Amino acid sequence: MINKLIEKIEQSKAPIVVGLDPMLSYVPIQIQEKAYQEKGETLAGAAEAVWQFNKAIVDAVYDLIPAVKPQIAMYEQFGIEGLIAFKKTVDYCKKKGLIVIGDIKRGDIGSTSAAYAAGHLGKVKVGSNSFYGFDEDFITVNPYFGSDGVEPFMDVCKEEKKGLFILVKTSNPSSGEFQDQPVGGRPLYELVGEKVAQWGEKLMGDKYSYVGAVVGATYPKVGKTLREIMPRTYILVPGYGAQGGKAEDISHYFNKDGLGAIVNSSRGIIAAYKRTEYDKYGPGAFADASRQAVVDMREDILGKP
Amino acid sequence: MINKLIEKIEQSKAPIVVGLDPMLSYVPIQIQEKAYQEKGETLAGAAEAVWQFNKAIVDAVYDLIPAVKPQIAMYEQFGIEGLIAFKKTVDYCKKKGLIVIGDIKRGDIGSTSAAYAAGHLGKVKVGSNSFYGFDEDFITVNPYFGSDGVEPFMDVCKEEKKGLFILVKTSNPSSGEFQDQPVGGRPLYELVGEKVAQWGEKLMGDKYSYVGAVVGATYPKVGKTLREIMPRTYILVPGYGAQGGKAEDISHYFNKDGLGAIVNSSRGIIAAYKRTEYDKYGPGAFADASRQAVVDMREDILGKP
Repeated sequence: MINKLIEKIEQSKAPIVVGLDPMLSYVPIQIQEKAYQEKGETLAGAAEAVWQFNKAIVDAVYDLIPAVKPQIAMYEQFGIEGLIAFKKTVDYCKKKGLIVIGDIKRGDIGSTSAAYAAGHLGKVKVGSNSFYGFDEDFITVNPYFGSDGVEPFMDVCKEEKKGLFILVKTSNPSSGEFQDQPVGGRPLYELVGEKVAQWGEKLMGDKYSYVGAVVGATYPKVGKTLREIMPRTYILVPGYGAQGGKAEDISHYFNKDGLGAIVNSSRGIIAAYKRTEYDKYGPGAFADASRQAVVDMREDILGKP
Repeated sequence: MINKLIEKIEQSKAPIVVGLDPMLSYVPIQIQEKAYQEKGETLAGAAEAVWQFNKAIVDAVYDLIPAVKPQIAMYEQFGIEGLIAFKKTVDYCKKKGLIVIGDIKRGDIGSTSAAYAAGHLGKVKVGSNSFYGFDEDFITVNPYFGSDGVEPFMDVCKEEKKGLFILVKTSNPSSGEFQDQPVGGRPLYELVGEKVAQWGEKLMGDKYSYVGAVVGATYPKVGKTLREIMPRTYILVPGYGAQGGKAEDISHYFNKDGLGAIVNSSRGIIAAYKRTEYDKYGPGAFADASRQAVVDMREDILGKP
């Protein structure tokens, strides 16, 4: 799947992933109203609104980008109905040829990580049958438990040819509280980065590993260091745009081959119609605003074509 | 909710939480067969088997214990159908008067943690209505993101009078890889413990904080140290029994008031009928075996009544 991701990045010339993190406040009022008319002002109504919103955005941008990253929390907040919308979104995006990175940040003791891995990347056996649960292509993983909490995910990746992005340095303001603590003369995130590189060696694709890393755009110097520590690790970069990360901040996240990083934008793309620079679109043409925001983001990151 | 948990621990004289982590391999064959007859060898069939298994165990033990801890991964592995069984289990346990600790180990940047908090502890607004998603009483939280990833959970706890157990030192063999790293002259888990104590001060119940901690039974010396660092933090103790933690290992997790810790057992209780000492029950009386295992666990931890 890492080979396929790289191929799609090269084809689209867009190292961009669109974060499908639909807060209800991003969903234009006409979509909310229609969903509520059909399903009531209920969890099912909210989930329907989110799903219709996602679908319109995916239809507007799928030919420009290699991948999407639905953040499961934004669906989980609506309970079962929300998770049905998550699954519909995963399936629809895959049908449109997009690679789906499930932003689920799971991680636990071995037997529990194995269950998460089965549910999100692999399959479970029921009697004499096997079934995929959520069936994303990649997922994000929290490393706090260490190797035996990560390896069950790797086992399933090996079997299914799927991939991981493991949290190394997160984009939020207080990420340094634990991640920046000095251990053995270097910050903890460097140790985590070394481990990710080691884990990754066991699961190599053609140029890069199936085991990737998450490094926030909001800490550019850290990104440069981690790029060197993990040379064959693909870096998923959150924090660009709405969280403050800029194009010049992320140039060092890429390798000399022009590969090695994929930059996420969520709000900046899916709620583009709310940004002053896309005012002219208005809520009625929200998906066109998202498409233009992808074009502009690509130009911002890579320069004018 | 921490006050209610303590009250129920004192009433039941059992600082015990039963982990409802139903691997399909734990579910007796007669329950699986019945479920598959009704719903097929499908995800829905597996979820039905899990639900019927949980229900029988809860019916057999609810009067002996204060709380249960369903591990959401074991449900999530069956996709949407599994999560429906999770929700049914949460609701049923609450109806039986049990406190429900959702073992979900979520944690993310602030806005995302807020969505998880809304979905698992609080409610979401849809139009002019509000709805609870999964509605557990406590949840477990991963601290890797630092304060701004934890605070949104605390905000919802304050509003809903619910609680958290934050990972400090986990029970798995490789937990030390990152958690034991020395920072400023002490292991990282002590720093995390200090933070948990600080966070907890902002959200105090009568005797203990609404913000608890997870400390594995498999590291008894660590438990003793963390007990001192976090005097008013309730400790959720996984790793007793099947993972190797023994009664003498966990005595130091309690305070002198006899409170301060609640010990989890999952496999050891729910799959008791598979243990040689409960052979006489057999799969047909699996729930009776679970009841006896709770009685025995209480005696093991507290001594004969």
